[in-house]
Amino acid sequence: MNKKLNKRQIILDEAAKLFKLKGFGGTSMRDLAGEVGMEAASMYNHIKSKDEILEHLCFHVSNTYIAQLAEVEQMPGSNGDKLKELLRWHINLMLEDGAAVSVANNDWKYLTDSKLEQFKAARKQYEKGFAALIENGIAAGEFRPVNASVALFTILSAVRWVELWYRPGRGVTAQELEEDIMAILLNGLAKN
Amino acid sequence: MNKKLNKRQIILDEAAKLFKLKGFGGTSMRDLAGEVGMEAASMYNHIKSKDEILEHLCFHVSNTYIAQLAEVEQMPGSNGDKLKELLRWHINLMLEDGAAVSVANNDWKYLTDSKLEQFKAARKQYEKGFAALIENGIAAGEFRPVNASVALFTILSAVRWVELWYRPGRGVTAQELEEDIMAILLNGLAKN
Repeated sequence: MNKKLNKRQIILDEAAKLFKLKGFGGTSMRDLAGEVGMEAASMYNHIKSKDEILEHLCFHVSNTYIAQLAEVEQMPGSNGDKLKELLRWHINLMLEDGAAVSVANNDWKYLTDSKLEQFKAARKQYEKGFAALIENGIAAGEFRPVNASVALFTILSAVRWVELWYRPGRGVTAQELEEDIMAILLNGLAKN
Repeated sequence: MNKKLNKRQIILDEAAKLFKLKGFGGTSMRDLAGEVGMEAASMYNHIKSKDEILEHLCFHVSNTYIAQLAEVEQMPGSNGDKLKELLRWHINLMLEDGAAVSVANNDWKYLTDSKLEQFKAARKQYEKGFAALIENGIAAGEFRPVNASVALFTILSAVRWVELWYRPGRGVTAQELEEDIMAILLNGLAKN
């Protein structure tokens, strides 16, 4: 990676951690410069503004979710198989990039104008695709005949604590965590 | 109900709605007085302070949860039956008293000193009792051998969206909602 890109990535990563800890509103560019060990002035060679950072983090998360959805939709296999992959990737992003996911979950509302609309549309697109998998699975007799919106929000909400709670070394490996959550949610949805 | 108690309850209910909407920090006693249609001065005949309201709302929720847990622990039946009742009551409180649950979930951190410690201890007690039901169910071979903490947080997190999203008239009745969520979570935990 070239040095400038690399520096930008470091700034974005530190910003995600700070926003998660202190909120978007509670973090200043000065705090961020302190955290990455740069003068504020030279930080602006890499990043235009706090808003730009927020946009980057939120769309990094929403673009990843949507790319994962598109990939799963192309996959062969049952709706159960597809939902399993989608859920695994959804959890994985929280494990690998928890601070960015936290910012996208909590601070998206500080996006402005067209960016805010774009983000809301992306979230809706993801939820719609996720719900369609559930609906298809119900129609195919793979899943219980539950209300697809209720199932969608139950599943998406069920995994949100991972980003808040999971740290390596809490006596649960990432793999166990993932398997146990998926066992509960996917077996719960399955029509035995 | 006598008139003074009744007035107090109205103030508490309106406060819960305002705190949910604007946060504890974003709500003033003046806002609240305006909402209940009283002079601030006469409101203080019923309520000592904003802190007192927050304490009341948080402990109303935690006391209810703990009373429900105690009741379930006394019940005859399998661990699955007990968990089902506990979860049903947990969801019911969100449906019936959503604003107070929201305040207890989000604004508990503004409790002070011993009240803060007391609230954290109450939450821990509830989580511990909830996890014990899961552990007993696993030991009895009723539930899958998952990590009990992972199951606990998955279940508690799974139902949190109800307080954020559910409104009568969204095409899902409270009963359907409850049944679908419980079907997913309890069948998911069950060892077929």
